[in-house]
Amino acid sequence: MDRILKDMEFIVQLDKMKTVLRQTQLIGSEQREDDAQHSWHIAVMTMVLSDYADEKIDSSKVIKMLLIHDLVELYAGDTFCYDAKGNEDKKSREMEAADKIFGMLDENKAKEFRSLWDEFEDMETPEALFAASMDRLQPMLNNYYNGGGTWKKHEIAQRDIFKRISPMEKSSKKLWEFVEFMLDDAYNKGLISKK
Amino acid sequence: MDRILKDMEFIVQLDKMKTVLRQTQLIGSEQREDDAQHSWHIAVMTMVLSDYADEKIDSSKVIKMLLIHDLVELYAGDTFCYDAKGNEDKKSREMEAADKIFGMLDENKAKEFRSLWDEFEDMETPEALFAASMDRLQPMLNNYYNGGGTWKKHEIAQRDIFKRISPMEKSSKKLWEFVEFMLDDAYNKGLISKK
Repeated sequence: MDRILKDMEFIVQLDKMKTVLRQTQLIGSEQREDDAQHSWHIAVMTMVLSDYADEKIDSSKVIKMLLIHDLVELYAGDTFCYDAKGNEDKKSREMEAADKIFGMLDENKAKEFRSLWDEFEDMETPEALFAASMDRLQPMLNNYYNGGGTWKKHEIAQRDIFKRISPMEKSSKKLWEFVEFMLDDAYNKGLISKK
Repeated sequence: MDRILKDMEFIVQLDKMKTVLRQTQLIGSEQREDDAQHSWHIAVMTMVLSDYADEKIDSSKVIKMLLIHDLVELYAGDTFCYDAKGNEDKKSREMEAADKIFGMLDENKAKEFRSLWDEFEDMETPEALFAASMDRLQPMLNNYYNGGGTWKKHEIAQRDIFKRISPMEKSSKKLWEFVEFMLDDAYNKGLISKK
């Protein structure tokens, strides 16, 4: 029962992910998305899109990675991907947060979660590259359908957006083709800053 | 590219799950939880708790079921579990919604999603029983940590709460023990109506 009570403490902490706000807005709304919503969205996207991966991938592993990839933000907060200054110490803040959050679980479970998170962060395996692609594609879809969203608000240049979504080029030629099409269309429509 | 564009239309629809509100409130907050947040929470709960299942279960399948179990609410809305009237036509409203939402996907993917949803709804396999347990435990945890939450607001009797969480008794003796402990404690603390 002690172990169950410990697990429940962790599960109660998870509730706070519903109030960690991201820069992205919901489609057709001013409401900012939170980490729980974002993580759910990209997990379901994996169920829909994993067939397009160039290599055969373990989609269940990708889903698990994505479900927990932002847990560190419970302590480290969300860092906007185009914020150069905030990203300087992001890694060290998140490593500390990972020790804290995964340390709440019993040893075996902690190892399993930490190993999934490390693999995601290292972005080297086919699963991690596909996970990164989903994590980066979703806010782009929201921006595209929101008349530019945070791209426009923060005047993000097209080359920086292409750089951000570059893991997809290594992960799925078919989805990369779609992204090129979408980003060119967004540029032509003036949704992406022309600076 | 046609199939990808169709998939993206489905993925854009998913965004609306972030605005389908449930009765449950976030812990320590008046804010009502939405379907995306709820689905994420119970998927991660499965990663933490699936070891406690009495039978060996395929936790990845449970996670996939839970990620999509509420998609029908995009069209059928959320029905409060203790609302007898709303639950009368729930099944037919949700069956119609399932045809509509899963019908957006190409045939193979539609079949896969529909089969997961049907299995969840039938609540017969060990995976479906565990999924139902997670779906029902999470709002109870939120109520317990919210001084009674919707239990108190709607004066729900303890026997109805036990009935609601009964799939867990068939799924995990260890988690069932925890639930009995929590619900008895909630009753003693006056968090559950004594009517």
